[in-house]
Amino acid sequence: MTEFPIQQTEDIPIWETLEEHLQNGDVDAVRHVVATLDPGEIPRVLSHIELEERNQLLNLLDAETSAAWLEQLPDSQIAEILDDLEPAVAAPIVDTLPSNAQADVLGELEPESANAILELMQPEEAEDAQRLVQYPEDTAGGIMITEYLSYPENVTVGGVLDDLRAHTEEYQRHDVQYIYITDVLGALKGVLRLRDLVLTPSHISVRQIMLTDLEWMPVDARVEELQDFFANRPYLGVPIVDADRKLLGVVRHADVAEAISEQAASDHLKAQGIVGGEELRTMPVVTRAWHRLSWLSINIVLNIIAASVIAMYQDTLSAVIVLAVFLPIISDMSGCSGNQAVAVSMRELTLGIIRPSDVWRTWGKELSVGLINATALGALLGLAAYIWKGNLVLSLVVAGALGLNTLVAVSLGGLVPLFLRHMKMDPALASGPILTTVTDMCGFFLVLSFASATLSMIT
Amino acid sequence: MTEFPIQQTEDIPIWETLEEHLQNGDVDAVRHVVATLDPGEIPRVLSHIELEERNQLLNLLDAETSAAWLEQLPDSQIAEILDDLEPAVAAPIVDTLPSNAQADVLGELEPESANAILELMQPEEAEDAQRLVQYPEDTAGGIMITEYLSYPENVTVGGVLDDLRAHTEEYQRHDVQYIYITDVLGALKGVLRLRDLVLTPSHISVRQIMLTDLEWMPVDARVEELQDFFANRPYLGVPIVDADRKLLGVVRHADVAEAISEQAASDHLKAQGIVGGEELRTMPVVTRAWHRLSWLSINIVLNIIAASVIAMYQDTLSAVIVLAVFLPIISDMSGCSGNQAVAVSMRELTLGIIRPSDVWRTWGKELSVGLINATALGALLGLAAYIWKGNLVLSLVVAGALGLNTLVAVSLGGLVPLFLRHMKMDPALASGPILTTVTDMCGFFLVLSFASATLSMIT
Repeated sequence: MTEFPIQQTEDIPIWETLEEHLQNGDVDAVRHVVATLDPGEIPRVLSHIELEERNQLLNLLDAETSAAWLEQLPDSQIAEILDDLEPAVAAPIVDTLPSNAQADVLGELEPESANAILELMQPEEAEDAQRLVQYPEDTAGGIMITEYLSYPENVTVGGVLDDLRAHTEEYQRHDVQYIYITDVLGALKGVLRLRDLVLTPSHISVRQIMLTDLEWMPVDARVEELQDFFANRPYLGVPIVDADRKLLGVVRHADVAEAISEQAASDHLKAQGIVGGEELRTMPVVTRAWHRLSWLSINIVLNIIAASVIAMYQDTLSAVIVLAVFLPIISDMSGCSGNQAVAVSMRELTLGIIRPSDVWRTWGKELSVGLINATALGALLGLAAYIWKGNLVLSLVVAGALGLNTLVAVSLGGLVPLFLRHMKMDPALASGPILTTVTDMCGFFLVLSFASATLSMIT
Repeated sequence: MTEFPIQQTEDIPIWETLEEHLQNGDVDAVRHVVATLDPGEIPRVLSHIELEERNQLLNLLDAETSAAWLEQLPDSQIAEILDDLEPAVAAPIVDTLPSNAQADVLGELEPESANAILELMQPEEAEDAQRLVQYPEDTAGGIMITEYLSYPENVTVGGVLDDLRAHTEEYQRHDVQYIYITDVLGALKGVLRLRDLVLTPSHISVRQIMLTDLEWMPVDARVEELQDFFANRPYLGVPIVDADRKLLGVVRHADVAEAISEQAASDHLKAQGIVGGEELRTMPVVTRAWHRLSWLSINIVLNIIAASVIAMYQDTLSAVIVLAVFLPIISDMSGCSGNQAVAVSMRELTLGIIRPSDVWRTWGKELSVGLINATALGALLGLAAYIWKGNLVLSLVVAGALGLNTLVAVSLGGLVPLFLRHMKMDPALASGPILTTVTDMCGFFLVLSFASATLSMIT
């Protein structure tokens, strides 16, 4: 068997080396470690290094390197790290982040830190970021970038080329797939492809070669709509406009895919009881405990309610004490079956294959699988009970209870996410507790009431 | 309260309208419905429409529309739909999919269908697809596209422009951000930016203006490595090469983000007991039941093992029958606490914040949160027990058992994913069953052994 590694037996971790160099003030050694660091190690180093040394390190690095390092972390962690830095050090780092990341991070910062940093940022960057921070995170406005190229429609091909040539450095960070053409009020009129620019004499106006049948999306389009948009089209980016068709930014395909991925990750964490979907172990312990407890304390109350069904059947239990062995099995197995159905419904909702109104189809599909699984699981548990106790009626009681409760669990598991989505509640957070409470109550009731009814035959 | 909608009260769903038109052979009406369909509805229509009508519909649509429709679905569902079509209809649809999607779909098809379709595809598309299908899905080879532009290094700027002009239509589908330059053997030598092409006289050789300090990734690079690559760089795509630096394809940033997102979705489904992470309710019922049962049947065996601890304490249980009420509560709550820790560890592993060797840090961080939550949950359950039964020792028994088992659960939950990852096993699939089995056994043992030790005081 492979030995399970523990930290002590590893070489000295990089963050400890860094900490030592920083404590000794050995700047050259720090720079050497930084230069030779595997990029995949960056999140781990930033998460493990002590606060004081982390601040020292980010003071030493230039703003662009710091920004590139921080970009590897989730927004909430970037905000925590920037909160601890001097605003004068944090501002240039935020300046060099892409505009959509700027807004996300500023939105997560403590208000005082955010204001202090905004004041020290380059004015145009600060203005963009303040505008972007107002858009909800799951809309086009929340993920668009403002680094795009646009020219008024009366400029010539030569004019565009001269400008491109003059600002090569600056546009390096820009998305130059498409060049947008606007009227004097900033309304989107057309798009210019670089390849058309290549093949046109300098004196021609861009108005003559721009494509005018371009597509755009409104600033309040949801991320899912943007996903549908890109799924059907080969574009790398789409211009984002306001109600007056004024050009506000560009959403790139990769940013949509990343936003969807983050949303899915957050849903997954919520389904496992991490409220807000944001915990990292670098956060303060009280915050972490509080978030977890807020979900656990609701769960324990629901659990007590469910278990009260058992309390009502104490006489039956006293008479057939072996039932106490089967109660947790039926509770746990029904939860498993139900959670499978929840997971499939959540996925089909996300993919757009079902809507909250598809109740009958979903129920029918779950029942057909449920019947097979109920039979199989009931038979397995009944067999185990018979082998253990040799009482046919007892084994039929537990088999029947588990089988019936499996049908209840898959029905509920399939439908609860649809119901919650329809009620505009978050299915990721609430499906699990609702499902387990109801299936527990129902499972306890089934096994104990069957047992009560056949009490003379199973004692 | 809002009324919960059921399908009957909706207008007639689009797929039923389509089915009717298709049954009547009313081609114009079908085309009208298709032309006015909201793209967001496509996955739902393709999933709900009956098999025969779906085939009729895809026969009617041109290959490009069919491909655009199918691209909205997961690969396994595309494969299922294509399996049911005539190869002569399916082949042109596959022809128009991007090369990475072609390979994914062909990999999911029944071998006979795949061969029949490949024979009818355009020879160069078929060849590309057959080559790509050999690379594992989670590597650069599995997600790269082969629609890129490359020219030998001895061609001139004018030559490139002439070729671009001559093939505008064909290159429409290509990724033209970068133009790659290779030597005679196909080895990658440099990259040409469109903007440099713009500003250079026609007779200059591309060798003189290509950038030679370009970056590339090996064909066997894992998707996570590609994610790290793009996290640090503003590129939209990266060339993929073999061991001899021969250019094989291009991986786009958006495709990496999508692959990561699919992997996370599949992990989420696996954590909920959907083996393989692929179930959709359009699949055959036996397949679905089989996949779910393979996980459930392992779980029920583990559950029976865990519950056998209860069987060993039947005398204690008979004496204090109220303990039977607390057993499922302690089992369920420990599972909840443990799953929270599993979710956070899985996320930190994915983000690269921890590695399997970070045992002590992870354990320490979980214990600190665990101590707070153990105290709070133990106090809550103890209080409930005291209010119900008024026996202080009994309430201390259940409070102590839940508290201690919470510490066990968060420790296990935090560490099991690290251990499984270290053992090259899949933490998404196995963490849950391992966790609940051990915490159930431990929880049952704690409460029943505490009760046995204090039996005279709690009866």
